Amino acid sequence: MKDSVGLPPGSLIHIGTKTSSPIQIHVIDYTKDHFEEKSVQNITECFPFRDTESITWITIDGIHDAGLIDSIGKHFGVHPIVLEDIMNTSQRPKMEIFDTYIYLVFKMLYRNESNHDIQAEQVSIILGKNFVISFQEDPGDIFDPIRQRIRTGKGRIRTMGADYLAYSLFDAVVDNYFIILEDIGEAIELVEDQILGNSEPETVRAIQTLKSDMIFLRKSIWPLREVVNCLMRGDSKLISKATGIYLRDVYDHTFQVIDTIETYRDMISGLFDIYMSSVSNKLNEVMKILTIFTTIFIPLTFVAGVYGMNFNSDASPLNMPELRWYFGYPMILTIMLLITLVMIWYFKRKKWI
Amino acid sequence: MKDSVGLPPGSLIHIGTKTSSPIQIHVIDYTKDHFEEKSVQNITECFPFRDTESITWITIDGIHDAGLIDSIGKHFGVHPIVLEDIMNTSQRPKMEIFDTYIYLVFKMLYRNESNHDIQAEQVSIILGKNFVISFQEDPGDIFDPIRQRIRTGKGRIRTMGADYLAYSLFDAVVDNYFIILEDIGEAIELVEDQILGNSEPETVRAIQTLKSDMIFLRKSIWPLREVVNCLMRGDSKLISKATGIYLRDVYDHTFQVIDTIETYRDMISGLFDIYMSSVSNKLNEVMKILTIFTTIFIPLTFVAGVYGMNFNSDASPLNMPELRWYFGYPMILTIMLLITLVMIWYFKRKKWI
Amino acid sequence: MKDSVGLPPGSLIHIGTKTSSPIQIHVIDYTKDHFEEKSVQNITECFPFRDTESITWITIDGIHDAGLIDSIGKHFGVHPIVLEDIMNTSQRPKMEIFDTYIYLVFKMLYRNESNHDIQAEQVSIILGKNFVISFQEDPGDIFDPIRQRIRTGKGRIRTMGADYLAYSLFDAVVDNYFIILEDIGEAIELVEDQILGNSEPETVRAIQTLKSDMIFLRKSIWPLREVVNCLMRGDSKLISKATGIYLRDVYDHTFQVIDTIETYRDMISGLFDIYMSSVSNKLNEVMKILTIFTTIFIPLTFVAGVYGMNFNSDASPLNMPELRWYFGYPMILTIMLLITLVMIWYFKRKKWI
Amino acid sequence: MKDSVGLPPGSLIHIGTKTSSPIQIHVIDYTKDHFEEKSVQNITECFPFRDTESITWITIDGIHDAGLIDSIGKHFGVHPIVLEDIMNTSQRPKMEIFDTYIYLVFKMLYRNESNHDIQAEQVSIILGKNFVISFQEDPGDIFDPIRQRIRTGKGRIRTMGADYLAYSLFDAVVDNYFIILEDIGEAIELVEDQILGNSEPETVRAIQTLKSDMIFLRKSIWPLREVVNCLMRGDSKLISKATGIYLRDVYDHTFQVIDTIETYRDMISGLFDIYMSSVSNKLNEVMKILTIFTTIFIPLTFVAGVYGMNFNSDASPLNMPELRWYFGYPMILTIMLLITLVMIWYFKRKKWI
Amino acid sequence: MKDSVGLPPGSLIHIGTKTSSPIQIHVIDYTKDHFEEKSVQNITECFPFRDTESITWITIDGIHDAGLIDSIGKHFGVHPIVLEDIMNTSQRPKMEIFDTYIYLVFKMLYRNESNHDIQAEQVSIILGKNFVISFQEDPGDIFDPIRQRIRTGKGRIRTMGADYLAYSLFDAVVDNYFIILEDIGEAIELVEDQILGNSEPETVRAIQTLKSDMIFLRKSIWPLREVVNCLMRGDSKLISKATGIYLRDVYDHTFQVIDTIETYRDMISGLFDIYMSSVSNKLNEVMKILTIFTTIFIPLTFVAGVYGMNFNSDASPLNMPELRWYFGYPMILTIMLLITLVMIWYFKRKKWI
Repeated sequence: MKDSVGLPPGSLIHIGTKTSSPIQIHVIDYTKDHFEEKSVQNITECFPFRDTESITWITIDGIHDAGLIDSIGKHFGVHPIVLEDIMNTSQRPKMEIFDTYIYLVFKMLYRNESNHDIQAEQVSIILGKNFVISFQEDPGDIFDPIRQRIRTGKGRIRTMGADYLAYSLFDAVVDNYFIILEDIGEAIELVEDQILGNSEPETVRAIQTLKSDMIFLRKSIWPLREVVNCLMRGDSKLISKATGIYLRDVYDHTFQVIDTIETYRDMISGLFDIYMSSVSNKLNEVMKILTIFTTIFIPLTFVAGVYGMNFNSDASPLNMPELRWYFGYPMILTIMLLITLVMIWYFKRKKWI
Repeated sequence: MKDSVGLPPGSLIHIGTKTSSPIQIHVIDYTKDHFEEKSVQNITECFPFRDTESITWITIDGIHDAGLIDSIGKHFGVHPIVLEDIMNTSQRPKMEIFDTYIYLVFKMLYRNESNHDIQAEQVSIILGKNFVISFQEDPGDIFDPIRQRIRTGKGRIRTMGADYLAYSLFDAVVDNYFIILEDIGEAIELVEDQILGNSEPETVRAIQTLKSDMIFLRKSIWPLREVVNCLMRGDSKLISKATGIYLRDVYDHTFQVIDTIETYRDMISGLFDIYMSSVSNKLNEVMKILTIFTTIFIPLTFVAGVYGMNFNSDASPLNMPELRWYFGYPMILTIMLLITLVMIWYFKRKKWI
Repeated sequence: MKDSVGLPPGSLIHIGTKTSSPIQIHVIDYTKDHFEEKSVQNITECFPFRDTESITWITIDGIHDAGLIDSIGKHFGVHPIVLEDIMNTSQRPKMEIFDTYIYLVFKMLYRNESNHDIQAEQVSIILGKNFVISFQEDPGDIFDPIRQRIRTGKGRIRTMGADYLAYSLFDAVVDNYFIILEDIGEAIELVEDQILGNSEPETVRAIQTLKSDMIFLRKSIWPLREVVNCLMRGDSKLISKATGIYLRDVYDHTFQVIDTIETYRDMISGLFDIYMSSVSNKLNEVMKILTIFTTIFIPLTFVAGVYGMNFNSDASPLNMPELRWYFGYPMILTIMLLITLVMIWYFKRKKWI
Repeated sequence: MKDSVGLPPGSLIHIGTKTSSPIQIHVIDYTKDHFEEKSVQNITECFPFRDTESITWITIDGIHDAGLIDSIGKHFGVHPIVLEDIMNTSQRPKMEIFDTYIYLVFKMLYRNESNHDIQAEQVSIILGKNFVISFQEDPGDIFDPIRQRIRTGKGRIRTMGADYLAYSLFDAVVDNYFIILEDIGEAIELVEDQILGNSEPETVRAIQTLKSDMIFLRKSIWPLREVVNCLMRGDSKLISKATGIYLRDVYDHTFQVIDTIETYRDMISGLFDIYMSSVSNKLNEVMKILTIFTTIFIPLTFVAGVYGMNFNSDASPLNMPELRWYFGYPMILTIMLLITLVMIWYFKRKKWI
Repeated sequence: MKDSVGLPPGSLIHIGTKTSSPIQIHVIDYTKDHFEEKSVQNITECFPFRDTESITWITIDGIHDAGLIDSIGKHFGVHPIVLEDIMNTSQRPKMEIFDTYIYLVFKMLYRNESNHDIQAEQVSIILGKNFVISFQEDPGDIFDPIRQRIRTGKGRIRTMGADYLAYSLFDAVVDNYFIILEDIGEAIELVEDQILGNSEPETVRAIQTLKSDMIFLRKSIWPLREVVNCLMRGDSKLISKATGIYLRDVYDHTFQVIDTIETYRDMISGLFDIYMSSVSNKLNEVMKILTIFTTIFIPLTFVAGVYGMNFNSDASPLNMPELRWYFGYPMILTIMLLITLVMIWYFKRKKWI
């Protein structure tokens, strides 16, 4: 955010991971009977679609070109402050209803295959009458099944409006959260097994990573509830009643995702408890071994020490007569053995060994 | 959920434990004076009952046959998104009011006799005018007393509408929660006794299992409150005022269940505290034994060591004259005894022994 | 609750501690100028009072006789589901407004003199026009002062309606909570003193008992707030405006009770912290004693050990010449003394002794 | 509260610290142009002021005289249940709006100079048209600056109504909370320094005292928010719009006080964490010293022990030839020194010393 | 706050860090086409701007001159209680709507470069028709970019009203919070690295400082949400609808800031957990080293002690014949080596070394 401090509101400054890859623009235009799809070089090629009756879906992969965003904004009548939000990848999920369009922004989540980090990509959607414009940070997304459905005309998508298309995008993103959560669920189980097996100090780090993952997920997903709720309430005439029923479904899914996040949070904070109790148990075990050894050998060493004293047997017959007994040495060894046995019996009774 | 990602909404895909057992369909049809009950092979045999004035209860045991669900949906006018929900066993308890029917979904809970795991089976109910359709994952349920009451005409059930039947099913499920909770209450007491008795490391695992049981129960039951509240508010004309009074009762029961869950959560987190304090106390006890032994024997061993020094008595009369005294050895033994007694007195005063 | 699972709603089954003591029925009937009181054998003797203008208070001590409850229900027009609730002692405090009567249920709490357990007795009240019926589990209650006030005509009670009588019963129960809370407050202070004095492992158990007491109290009393609030809002014409002012007072008391419960909860969870820190401090103290002893004697024993070595002074004059010095032994004793003093000075500086 | 259990509501029983000091009654009567002040012996002397247009402020220092309270109640038309509340010092702060007056009760807090305990005195205010009656437990209060302002006519107070006077009293009490909080803030810093310096077991007690202070403050002040909010909403015509602006100010102050209390609570629970970590660190330090000493001296003592063995050099030349070497003793001493140096190097690398 | 206790409300007393630096007054006056800027010595020079149609922004750097504040208040019709708030730097962020102006107060935060303490400066804004008066404690602020935008006419600021100017100031302050938060984010990472590296006792202090920083930030920023929400709801006609859209943006930013604060709070409390587990692990490691050393050497020392006993071989051939064996000494050394190897194998199996 640092970069934008001090700039006038509505300044189109890209905030996010810098990239210089070329921006890709993709247009899909369809009605029940008609389908057209193309990649365009120049955004102006998309503009004629605005005024047709057919549904148009424009995908912009790359949000770092202020000029492009600005010209889209001007042509489709989008408020500068919305354009600023589109270019700023640190948005909180939210929805804003304007007279002629709805602005939706949320996070598409990926789990990095190699290091299991969770990565977020911001998706902005402008839903207008007959058109949907979706903005992403990078090429590549999870919307291919939707494109396929439009192409083949499978399901209801070709027969319904732009609001249903926007819903489908949203639904795909929420469905994808379940996959992320299942991955995390497996990671939690893995860490749990680690703790009960061995519990290295690194385990704390693993727990901590899971914790921040959950904090991150929560921050990304929690506000969605309000967003969908707001869409469902039908404050905008851009959302038809038929689509409303589907939104109710995505609302339930959002709730389920949030439920799972809360459950995982509980489980992860439980992990820390198990870890700490496992550390305590180990300390206890170490202490027991030390205590057993020390308490067995210390009296024995003392006995040996006593008979190592140099009392002069010439000076007095009272001075350590045992040293001069015939069975002195075996007797002392037997005494030592008895002490050891008593100790072992004691620890057995205490259930230490 | 993974399986359904990318599919168009309303796709009838079974999500849950896979099973290939045949689906059982059971129909009960009754009025105040009339009663009919049969198992049918083909769902179409049930369709005539839709338009009669008598109350019809259709039970479908098994939700993995998309064709069956689809044909029920078409005949009874159920929205595809509801059918999708019926086939997906990962639903959150919820209620959805449509114009001609109400869709209810919740969890029936069992406690596995052998390993005490809690198992959930999803129950979906379609409540229409004069008919109730209930969907379960497997044959076998807790509704037999209700069937018996319908058969014998005991209680009000034969004289009231389909809404009362739906209420009865719901009530039976909520009542069943109390049994689960009583089982868990006993398990909590068992673990508490274990901790105060012996507190093995496995106890942590037992506590953790109880904790996740509560998380699971909470997730399954908490949303019910909203569901019943919604039913009670009488937003739908399918719920009569007479049944509303009974719903108030089930609402109280739901609250009681949730109260108990919260109480158990408090108790279980208390268990962990007791466990940790029991571990700490044991460490303390181990430390005390070690300290007592070490502090008693270390000075004794030192004394023995001193008189084991080889100072040459020929070189100087100052060199360890004690070794040449007549009562040297008994004196030293007495000194050692005194040291031991002082130590024991000290630890007694400290209340360590 | 187990017993009632599977029964039709409204089934009159007694749920609670089984008792076979005879049910006692007591009637008080009064107006401003008139007072009548009697114990009756048969409930039918009370029925004539229903239609008189005088205020009638019927007390039923014992709720295990389904026939009795049923005949009262029939005569006074009480809904079967309310009768079921009256006989079920596991109710959550609640209030239900019907057209001709209000149903109130709450817990009367006692503290067992011998073992200090908190015991609850369920009180149900049916408040109708001109009559109050109160149901208790056992004979003996805290309402005698109210009876006395009615008998003597002290206070406003004889001049006001049945709603004021119901309020008085409720108020007496809430006032009684303060006594329970004062007892618990004293128990908390006792445990606090114990911890700071000695802190045996049993203390954890005592803390845990207090904790579950608070959980139990909270569960019994928390819902009352909603109950009184509901009464105060005057949704029923059975509650006069004059009584409403008094209800505001009992509402404040309920709040005060809940406040105190929350305060005690905070204090009790603080107790556990003190306990754990006291355990830690003890461990520290044990460790210090062990360390002081060991670190003082280990070097001394080492020195003694050195001069116990058998180096042959004949083989070399370098072999332990100290043993042959004139002041060898006193010198070594002095060195040992110095080591001890340095150690003691070190521990003093560390503030360990 | 115990004393009042079983009494009819509205019974005038003094509940609080018993006192027998005489009750002081003080009257201030003023308009913009007129000022009169006197101490009266008999409450009846105040009654004529009720019906004048001038503002009258009656202060009653002492609430243990039921007769006095009763006669005020009768004359000014105050409901008996309010009179009961005035005499009961265990009130929760609250406000009650009646037709002709408003009843306000809150706590005036003092910090005892000697032992730093926080003490509360209950202040009740009856605000009527043109009069304010304030009740306190003891003589002496924080309202002198207000009296001075009335006497000198400084500020707005002489030109505004009785509601402004009531506001001024309330404002003075809330302002006084800031002083208490500043004292506590200093106490928290003191304890924090103690922990980081020395952390005696008594520190836990100090933390615990601060904790209960905050619980007490919270209980006393939290409900005020609701009280002021209620006053501000202007539900009563006794509060003029002009005074409403000032109430908004006191509302902010109340919020600030509550904010500070919450902040302090967080800080105090943080103190306990620092304390526990300081105890843990000390244990670690003790353990390190023990370990360093033991691990350095144990091998040395072992070496000395070896050369204290009495193997017979006559029996075999293999039996401890070192004892007969020329440089045997210096060599062994050197070996011991080397062992010590290696140990010290090891501990240095571990950053223990 | 102590200074103001006992003063009449609306008393103009400066509460905050005392300063005697001269007060600086700066005026900017502009319309779309006109721009004027000057520093004035006397506040009266600003008064003519009140009645012009142009937008006037008066900046007062220094709030310790009651006379100045009073004369501004009188001229612009500001209520005395607002003037009191402006001079009191311990305000909670808030907004108050009056008929002819809106009063806004919030905190501008700086991070001290040297010691990283967070410092707050209170900013008060009076937004009237065509004018904005901003009050700060000291010269120097973060509003220079706004001044620059007005001077150069960049962005919308010159074409919009005084409400947009007030919004711009507010927005600049909220944007600045992000910088503070990024600094803190870095500090958290630093402390995390410290813990996992070395974790000195000072780390606790660092964690504690971060914790109080978050408490302070939370206190300063949390109430802003309500403030912006209140502004957005458009309760005042001083806020135009066009500016409302921008306020929605600043509302989102405020939410983002609060989200980040909550996330940081979670992370910081996680830090303490890692710290404590790192302390526990160190204790475990120390204990292991002690145990390994002790358990290896104690039996060896015992063996050496045994052969140091002075049993008289003349008295009996049973008395320690080993001492007279030819291979006695090497045998004993070998036995000692075996004991050591067994111990090392044991600890290897336990994964301690």
